[in-house]
Amino acid sequence: MGDRRDRGALTRRRRTVTICGEAGASSKRNDKSESRNLSAYCEQVQEPLRSKEDGLKDRISCHRLQESLLSSESGYSNYRGILNWCVVMLVLSNARLFLENLIKYGILVDPIQVVSLFLKDPYSWPSACLIIVSNVFIVAALYTERQLAMGRISESIGTFLYCINLIAVLCFPSATVLTLTSMTPVGGIIALVVYTVVFLKLYSYRDVNKWSREIRHIQARKLSRSNSCPSVQRANGNAAHSHVTYPGNLTHRDMYYFIFAPTLCYELNFPRSPRIRKRFLLRRLFEMLFLMQLQVGLIQQWMVPTVQNSMKPFQDMDLSRMVERLLKLAVPNHLIWLIFFYWLFHSSMNFVAELMQFGDREFYRDWWNSETVPYFWSNWNIPVHKWCLRHFYKPMLKRGVNRLTAQIAVFFLSAFFHEYLVSVPLKMFRLWAFMGMMAQIPLAMFVGRFLRGNYGNAAVWISLIIGQPIAVLMYVHDYYVIHYGSATEGRASP
Amino acid sequence: MGDRRDRGALTRRRRTVTICGEAGASSKRNDKSESRNLSAYCEQVQEPLRSKEDGLKDRISCHRLQESLLSSESGYSNYRGILNWCVVMLVLSNARLFLENLIKYGILVDPIQVVSLFLKDPYSWPSACLIIVSNVFIVAALYTERQLAMGRISESIGTFLYCINLIAVLCFPSATVLTLTSMTPVGGIIALVVYTVVFLKLYSYRDVNKWSREIRHIQARKLSRSNSCPSVQRANGNAAHSHVTYPGNLTHRDMYYFIFAPTLCYELNFPRSPRIRKRFLLRRLFEMLFLMQLQVGLIQQWMVPTVQNSMKPFQDMDLSRMVERLLKLAVPNHLIWLIFFYWLFHSSMNFVAELMQFGDREFYRDWWNSETVPYFWSNWNIPVHKWCLRHFYKPMLKRGVNRLTAQIAVFFLSAFFHEYLVSVPLKMFRLWAFMGMMAQIPLAMFVGRFLRGNYGNAAVWISLIIGQPIAVLMYVHDYYVIHYGSATEGRASP
Repeated sequence: MGDRRDRGALTRRRRTVTICGEAGASSKRNDKSESRNLSAYCEQVQEPLRSKEDGLKDRISCHRLQESLLSSESGYSNYRGILNWCVVMLVLSNARLFLENLIKYGILVDPIQVVSLFLKDPYSWPSACLIIVSNVFIVAALYTERQLAMGRISESIGTFLYCINLIAVLCFPSATVLTLTSMTPVGGIIALVVYTVVFLKLYSYRDVNKWSREIRHIQARKLSRSNSCPSVQRANGNAAHSHVTYPGNLTHRDMYYFIFAPTLCYELNFPRSPRIRKRFLLRRLFEMLFLMQLQVGLIQQWMVPTVQNSMKPFQDMDLSRMVERLLKLAVPNHLIWLIFFYWLFHSSMNFVAELMQFGDREFYRDWWNSETVPYFWSNWNIPVHKWCLRHFYKPMLKRGVNRLTAQIAVFFLSAFFHEYLVSVPLKMFRLWAFMGMMAQIPLAMFVGRFLRGNYGNAAVWISLIIGQPIAVLMYVHDYYVIHYGSATEGRASP
Repeated sequence: MGDRRDRGALTRRRRTVTICGEAGASSKRNDKSESRNLSAYCEQVQEPLRSKEDGLKDRISCHRLQESLLSSESGYSNYRGILNWCVVMLVLSNARLFLENLIKYGILVDPIQVVSLFLKDPYSWPSACLIIVSNVFIVAALYTERQLAMGRISESIGTFLYCINLIAVLCFPSATVLTLTSMTPVGGIIALVVYTVVFLKLYSYRDVNKWSREIRHIQARKLSRSNSCPSVQRANGNAAHSHVTYPGNLTHRDMYYFIFAPTLCYELNFPRSPRIRKRFLLRRLFEMLFLMQLQVGLIQQWMVPTVQNSMKPFQDMDLSRMVERLLKLAVPNHLIWLIFFYWLFHSSMNFVAELMQFGDREFYRDWWNSETVPYFWSNWNIPVHKWCLRHFYKPMLKRGVNRLTAQIAVFFLSAFFHEYLVSVPLKMFRLWAFMGMMAQIPLAMFVGRFLRGNYGNAAVWISLIIGQPIAVLMYVHDYYVIHYGSATEGRASP
């Protein structure tokens, strides 16, 4: 059978040979047309053969010399998918934690209980009253400025009055919070935050008005000689551009616009957005309300149980369990912080700004890409950063303080305010927050020295994710020790 | 006091005025040099004033009209940091899981216990013997080919012999595994994997040799007429380029090179790498050994306890707990799978390839970026994918089967082999693996229809992360039910 096929193939081959042979012979007789026909015939006979052969050859050779993608020799670097992987993994593992938490504790979210954080008895609203009182200091500052503007009091007296006013802004509320028993910690924190903001705003208000007076002096001097020196015209021209000029800004309206505006730096003519975008406003409002609820829910459902569970190990000073608890707390704490950031700096501030047509919406920069600790601190909270730069850091440099000292001073200031905002409402002075802020300086030096690029970025993230829960646990622990006492002996025996 | 200062300022101003006035007057008298001096003098007087004024103006204006980065109006889109964030969060949360696991179970890693997975008694090595026996089938295939090459037996007889051989390759080991009591599941799986690989390789070996014979026929036919038709020369030329031509490849050496080479597709002339890179080889070897240990450790320390804990909920059919267990198992299972992928497809295969100077290192493509399910299946395991394409999918298309049917057939084949490799060693036929593979078809359709880009990618990841542990739990559960029986009644009462 095989032989027969072979024979058949042979005969077929012989036939084509003879034909092509003839073609060859005929073509030798230089008879163009005929040879063309015949060579065309040969092509016809061979075309299918060759194409089939090529097809088989293609099928047979299926390997080529090449490196694996993951080996460094192949310059491959497209790992888009990895980001999705990370996100999926995070979502799934946190979904699991949520489920575990629900199975363990059931639903703990309780909107009513939240109110008790702000009020002890519903007939006294201490923090609210305290906040209303703050208007006194604001108006006081305004009138001081007016006196200065009219030249009724000298600069030095103005400075003196301001010092009293500003010191009062910091001391009065803290004294109230510490003395009033009906004040809840949360209420106290809110009141103190408001007063701190007022303090920073008034400080800026004073500086800017002082500068404006100086400009007024200079311009007055130059005006008088503008007829002789043409160059002065231009300078005046610039000054004339602004809508409000110095003494004209000392109105209640202007003052309160500044007080409610989402910035700490005063300016005579804030940039204004052309119109109020309704849809933008509504979206921000929705975010505000929703994220507020979400935060409260997460704290009640996730933070509180974890913190309570972590009291025991912290009393027994059981290290491995302490670390485990810390890491367990780190995740919800960090998520809540992220939500808080978005809620405050994007939703709320944009909402207020849109409402007031306040133009400058740069409340934060891209701190999430920060590769050094200072970059993070100078980009996550722009209002405060701007204030520090304008009213604290630069003036120090002007006075000839060197950069490093000035930077450390800024950290020191913010450390002070952190401590102020935590210790006073909790009525315990532990300096954890203060040390937490000051610890940023060595951390910054370490990261800046040893870590670059993504490693630096990762280090910043780690410091955020781990650093906060440590401070939280410290305060909560001490708060427990003081108020529920049970932990004292546990802590006495490490 | 304030008045005195004002008066001082006035006098000063008056003085400068007079000076500049004179300057103006003198310049009118076209006395160049003098006017130049005087105007220069004016500049001198005013320069500090203007610079000071500009400085103050800069300090005062510190806001500009701009949007927040996160609001869509600002075309900002640099979230490099987020990837680092994800990585840090993953590392920290998994570190916590590890710590929790250690606190709970202590150290469970035990290299000795691993051996018991492969051997029941150290004097009988059933799977090892089974693997050695596989050479019989390999040599049989080689001799069949030789007979065919010499034309001693016809194609049809060759096909018949091959069928017997290949069926034997699949049936003999499975029969052995099912009958031998001394065979452990792990040992059985290894043996069956080896035999499956041999099966696929021999199938490819046969196809390629068949194609080579066809080419030989065609070339013989064309050779005979090469004198007349010049075009044939070229075709021959191409054929002559290859180092080994058809009958010359039927040697033991060539056969065993193919058997050990990290590919399933036979080729007469594999691309060869120029030299063995010692450092590359050592790095891969180190990876192989280290990752092997890591996998074993993770399975013992993390998988086993989780799986054992998840038996109870699965008996009680407690849904919420089942899901919680599933998600808890998903993470280690997925990590181990990823390590396994790298260990097998990058470290091991590259090690073997480097050792054999096998040129084609494309063992996987960028499946991690796959946005559709088929893309994943056709890129994560290139040797198998290549085989399916070359010896199963394309031949079907040639026979006129339409694309979709052919694709489904491929999934069906791989589903069969998945089931074969799991059911036989575990000695229970549950079709979970089979259904798992077949479930890919509706999944693929769903993803392809509704999800694009990153969503598709995320869907693929989820199917990987969730799909596998479901199958694992199914098999483990049933294995428990059969071998430890305790679960039967628990399962009977959902």
